Amino acid sequence: MSKKRLFITLFILLVCNTNIFAEDGYRLWMRYDALPVKKRNEYLSTIHQVVFQGNSAILSAAKQELNTGLKGLLANTIPNSNTVTNGSLLIGTPESSALIASLKLNQKLQALGEEGFYIGSLTLNQKQVTIITATTDQGILYGVFHLLQLLQTEKNIQRLNVVENPKLKIRVLNHWDNLDRTVERGYAGFSLWNWHKLPDYLDPRYTDYARANASIGINGAVLTNVNANALFLTEEYLVKSKALASVFRPYGIKVYFTARFSAPIEIGGLSTADPLDPEVRKWWKQKTDEIYSYIPDFGGFLVKANSEGQPGPQNYGRNHADGANMLADALAPHGGIVMWRAFVYDNKAPDDRSKQAFNEFTPLDGTFRKNVLVQVKNGPIDFQPREPFHPLFGKMPKTPLMMEFQITQEYLGFSTHLVYLGSLFKEVLNTDTYAKEEGSTVAKIISGSVDNHSLTGMAGVANIGDDRNWTGHIFGQANWFAFGKLAWNPESSEKQIADDWVRMTFNNNANTVKPIKEIMLASREAAVNYMTPLGLHHLMGYSHHFGPGPWVANKQRADWTAVYYHKADSAGIGFDRTLTGSNAIGQYAPDVQKQFQDVYTTDEKYLLWFHHVSWTHKLKSGRTLWDELCYKYYAGVDSVRHMRKTWESQKSNIDFERFTQVQTLLKMQEKEAVVWRNSCVLYFQTFSKMPIPQGLEKPDKSLDYYMSLKYSFVPGN
Amino acid sequence: MSKKRLFITLFILLVCNTNIFAEDGYRLWMRYDALPVKKRNEYLSTIHQVVFQGNSAILSAAKQELNTGLKGLLANTIPNSNTVTNGSLLIGTPESSALIASLKLNQKLQALGEEGFYIGSLTLNQKQVTIITATTDQGILYGVFHLLQLLQTEKNIQRLNVVENPKLKIRVLNHWDNLDRTVERGYAGFSLWNWHKLPDYLDPRYTDYARANASIGINGAVLTNVNANALFLTEEYLVKSKALASVFRPYGIKVYFTARFSAPIEIGGLSTADPLDPEVRKWWKQKTDEIYSYIPDFGGFLVKANSEGQPGPQNYGRNHADGANMLADALAPHGGIVMWRAFVYDNKAPDDRSKQAFNEFTPLDGTFRKNVLVQVKNGPIDFQPREPFHPLFGKMPKTPLMMEFQITQEYLGFSTHLVYLGSLFKEVLNTDTYAKEEGSTVAKIISGSVDNHSLTGMAGVANIGDDRNWTGHIFGQANWFAFGKLAWNPESSEKQIADDWVRMTFNNNANTVKPIKEIMLASREAAVNYMTPLGLHHLMGYSHHFGPGPWVANKQRADWTAVYYHKADSAGIGFDRTLTGSNAIGQYAPDVQKQFQDVYTTDEKYLLWFHHVSWTHKLKSGRTLWDELCYKYYAGVDSVRHMRKTWESQKSNIDFERFTQVQTLLKMQEKEAVVWRNSCVLYFQTFSKMPIPQGLEKPDKSLDYYMSLKYSFVPGN
Repeated sequence: MSKKRLFITLFILLVCNTNIFAEDGYRLWMRYDALPVKKRNEYLSTIHQVVFQGNSAILSAAKQELNTGLKGLLANTIPNSNTVTNGSLLIGTPESSALIASLKLNQKLQALGEEGFYIGSLTLNQKQVTIITATTDQGILYGVFHLLQLLQTEKNIQRLNVVENPKLKIRVLNHWDNLDRTVERGYAGFSLWNWHKLPDYLDPRYTDYARANASIGINGAVLTNVNANALFLTEEYLVKSKALASVFRPYGIKVYFTARFSAPIEIGGLSTADPLDPEVRKWWKQKTDEIYSYIPDFGGFLVKANSEGQPGPQNYGRNHADGANMLADALAPHGGIVMWRAFVYDNKAPDDRSKQAFNEFTPLDGTFRKNVLVQVKNGPIDFQPREPFHPLFGKMPKTPLMMEFQITQEYLGFSTHLVYLGSLFKEVLNTDTYAKEEGSTVAKIISGSVDNHSLTGMAGVANIGDDRNWTGHIFGQANWFAFGKLAWNPESSEKQIADDWVRMTFNNNANTVKPIKEIMLASREAAVNYMTPLGLHHLMGYSHHFGPGPWVANKQRADWTAVYYHKADSAGIGFDRTLTGSNAIGQYAPDVQKQFQDVYTTDEKYLLWFHHVSWTHKLKSGRTLWDELCYKYYAGVDSVRHMRKTWESQKSNIDFERFTQVQTLLKMQEKEAVVWRNSCVLYFQTFSKMPIPQGLEKPDKSLDYYMSLKYSFVPGN
Repeated sequence: MSKKRLFITLFILLVCNTNIFAEDGYRLWMRYDALPVKKRNEYLSTIHQVVFQGNSAILSAAKQELNTGLKGLLANTIPNSNTVTNGSLLIGTPESSALIASLKLNQKLQALGEEGFYIGSLTLNQKQVTIITATTDQGILYGVFHLLQLLQTEKNIQRLNVVENPKLKIRVLNHWDNLDRTVERGYAGFSLWNWHKLPDYLDPRYTDYARANASIGINGAVLTNVNANALFLTEEYLVKSKALASVFRPYGIKVYFTARFSAPIEIGGLSTADPLDPEVRKWWKQKTDEIYSYIPDFGGFLVKANSEGQPGPQNYGRNHADGANMLADALAPHGGIVMWRAFVYDNKAPDDRSKQAFNEFTPLDGTFRKNVLVQVKNGPIDFQPREPFHPLFGKMPKTPLMMEFQITQEYLGFSTHLVYLGSLFKEVLNTDTYAKEEGSTVAKIISGSVDNHSLTGMAGVANIGDDRNWTGHIFGQANWFAFGKLAWNPESSEKQIADDWVRMTFNNNANTVKPIKEIMLASREAAVNYMTPLGLHHLMGYSHHFGPGPWVANKQRADWTAVYYHKADSAGIGFDRTLTGSNAIGQYAPDVQKQFQDVYTTDEKYLLWFHHVSWTHKLKSGRTLWDELCYKYYAGVDSVRHMRKTWESQKSNIDFERFTQVQTLLKMQEKEAVVWRNSCVLYFQTFSKMPIPQGLEKPDKSLDYYMSLKYSFVPGN
């Protein structure tokens, strides 16, 4: 074969081989495909070689990631060296690297916490170098991922001066994974944790899971469902958790367990789980010591107690602090923490469920141990498409409150709807609680700056399963990504996060980035509109929560129905939570109360959350409430149609497999959005008795038809 | 960049890209990586171009597979053409291809059934060509896969004259998949069928599933569990099954449903499911017509009735034929079939469960409709590591009996044990039933040649799940493969099948093929030895069937315990099924009875299946039964150790990921085999009161320890 022929053959082979790589979404945003030649050359002129000093488990993981990333992105094997030349990338802590130590960056390093990092372009021994340094190995790991992301998003790296410190200390995923591998509210297949084959078989996917988390700064994983099983605390499972912990450790991920409050009875042989009983306290202490004997860096417990049938301290006439403190005392000697959930409500349906957590928890402020965080959902009901912020934020100043966001889309279309949750998360974080003064945003409450807490955190209920693309929907990956980025820094912009994610996940082409970002940023409002506009909430199907169920009534608890929340009648619709209603607004700071007390000053996106409003009430648009409600529902569907159209325009910019997957799911989303819209509009029309405004397409099926739709074996239920 | 530099860069990129391809086992045996250059050149000299004539859906699928395969294996894009030159590969039926028709192969084609194919090297218009032809498109599909497999296994293709016809008509996988995606006795994750996202989202994996099946001749899939749910027959699911059928159709795969016998009550609103009730018969007829309106080539029903709590005709005083015939009558106008399972046993534990199916079914011989097959498990109990053949084979000459093998390793170590089932399948198929005369093997009974049936079949209970490697264990793929090959031709050699599988799955290197084949072929006997040697059976853990449980006793049914089957006592061990025992042997032909009646003529591998034998009885080895039992158990573990050693020798021949996976699982297998051995030997020793023979390592734990082992949330249960 002539050289030319051979050359051509090789070229063809190359192209073929590249195509073999199934674009199934498995690689998430950690795609290290070769950058455009121009960009590569630019970077290669800055980075000729790597001087990576240190060889701890974490540093080795960071080094391997760096090598993989550079090799892929730059389509070159960047040599490793021990000596610095011009164009070196020098990496290490002052402890691991004499070269770094010689830079005497003490002042810079002091500003870095235990997990922060510094990336800088500077001169060392008259050589131009780029350095990544930190006070800990974990900081280095985050710095390496940061640098790779700068390359993936094609940023300029010639004059770097990046100082990054996480604003929150505990950044954890909550996996609602059961031991039988079903996932409560999971829509991406089944649990990643293959307990049967653990501890021996370590699926390579566990490592990729850890890499993905580390790449966005997540430093903890609660392995199991908050509706917990005590068996998980027995030796049978401890050896398995230990194995997972060993995979996660080099990526800076700690494991946490959910603690079943009645475990002392169920697996301990005691007759009580009373948190003040000395035997019970001793049992937890020993159990905790035992856990640490398996997992020396065990993170701690997440507890759901006295909520939805779970046992808890109230079973023994004790309060939440009694329960949390017992566990906190067992964990404290080891440095572990308790995350105690505030998502509680009575067994008897109350006048207004939204008020319960506040009523139970505010009296306990100041009574929790130092290593306890109270974990509060973003809103006072339950992860609805839109809720006002939870009134506990700002009202327990002596207790660190941890945010609980839901990444899995229990109420936002499962894994068939493209809904970018960065918008939802940021809306909550940006909201001003007025707890101390103007500007006491939720973000500032949880980052501890308002009340001076150093133990801080954010939890995300994971949307991850064993689906090949991890999250069931390629765009579900963006929500995992956004959660990590906002847990690192709640002040980050959801727009910038979306921008980075699109670049890393698809490409840097402006013709891709701009339109995809646009549909992402509009997507959450679209879902609110076709599901629960104007402050409506809890309209979903019973129990499985799939599809619309505004007609759901007469269930075992009133507060598990839709009618309890929307209270539609011939006069109007909405839940009166004002002073003269349930007075839920009384739980907020006076400045917030003032906004919500008056139907005219209430932001219309929360209108029906706080007010029962007449169908003919005029809104800011000049339309009646009824008409506006219809327009909102229709606008939601229209947005999905627009998303579909925009996506179609990307056909030539996105690989076939991922393009087709999203295309199909958007089609399903439109279908389901129409079902939502028609169901709700037709159902509420039975109260308003008013026509659907002219110009809007008429529902093609009857209300009876929509009410007759049955969904069997809905996942996650 | 100079040409040379560019060349080198391209070469490096090529190598890198090849490495990117994760070797996670997803590609099964359909790996089309480039063959060695010499082999490629040899093939390229025979195949320069492809002349593929015809464009039906099946032919298009075949063509696409061929192009993908050739491009990969030969590392060349083989041009497609419409005219024949020297070195053409000409493909088509006489209908689809004028060139093929011009060959006037009528005689050859007449010998081909509806699914057979001919591959030949011949001369057409003075050109040397290779042809693949058949009477149907499906035959072409199988021929294409056959040719690809010849290349994958590096066979000579210069003088081909291959005529292949499947010996069995119905070659189906039985998926015991539930609608919630759990899989009964599934150890490879969860169901492939994502019902929630169907019918809209068609996972590309569905296509790969169909490709894999077609590549080994499987032509049907029963989508759901034999423990059936009537909801599956409702519109909600029919639209979803229709979508799957549409994916499978181009690969010649028909879908079948499991029919819940009480469906007329559960979803039809009737008050009875009596098969002789006219309303019930009408309901099934209408339901069947409805199914065909969705799926015009629907295959038919698989039914488990009056067994393990499933409803059936006996609930109404009718017999199995009444039930089967009712469904058969509904299906007949559409060409559908009924597969009626013979796996039945009374609700009351009988004297010998092994006799029940025979007793219930033989009186019905001759009363089934023509489109009914009775589906019989290979042995009379339940897929044990070793059972004698089922006595029904040969004893229902007027009824086509279909084989039911279990591919999923319910009793053979789940998905952590390497057990090649080709050996088990062949042992059964080769066994002589003496039904008509010597040589009436089970294979000949099911292929219809003994009793002249044209409706024939084989079912395999699938071991497939959503695990990335499909079967949980790379070597589980070999059992899927072997099942398909033996369903196509029960006379095939399990050794040859293993040879092909190793070549296609790993490589053609003799240093790989020989040792891996060796461990595969020894693996089933190894499992029998460490689990249930010498004819022992049903010693596994209760309910979940994981690990040993020879001590299982006192359960809700005697025949769900181990003691019912091994009957160990101070005198000896084994189930007396002779004339003076349960007389189960009376169900076999006289020649078989003669073998099994006498403890001395009984093949020792079945010894304790048929006889209660004294601990001191001398076996052919000269050892006492007790000693021999010990030696067998120890030999089983030794075999696994040998397998591990052999596998280690393959480190440099197998890619890292698959090598490591198997390495880890073999380690687990040894651990579990030791638990089996020690549990059984220590337990049986409490009866024999005899010492473990000298020279055998002593169990390092006590019987109490083994009996205390608990396994929670075992998969598949």
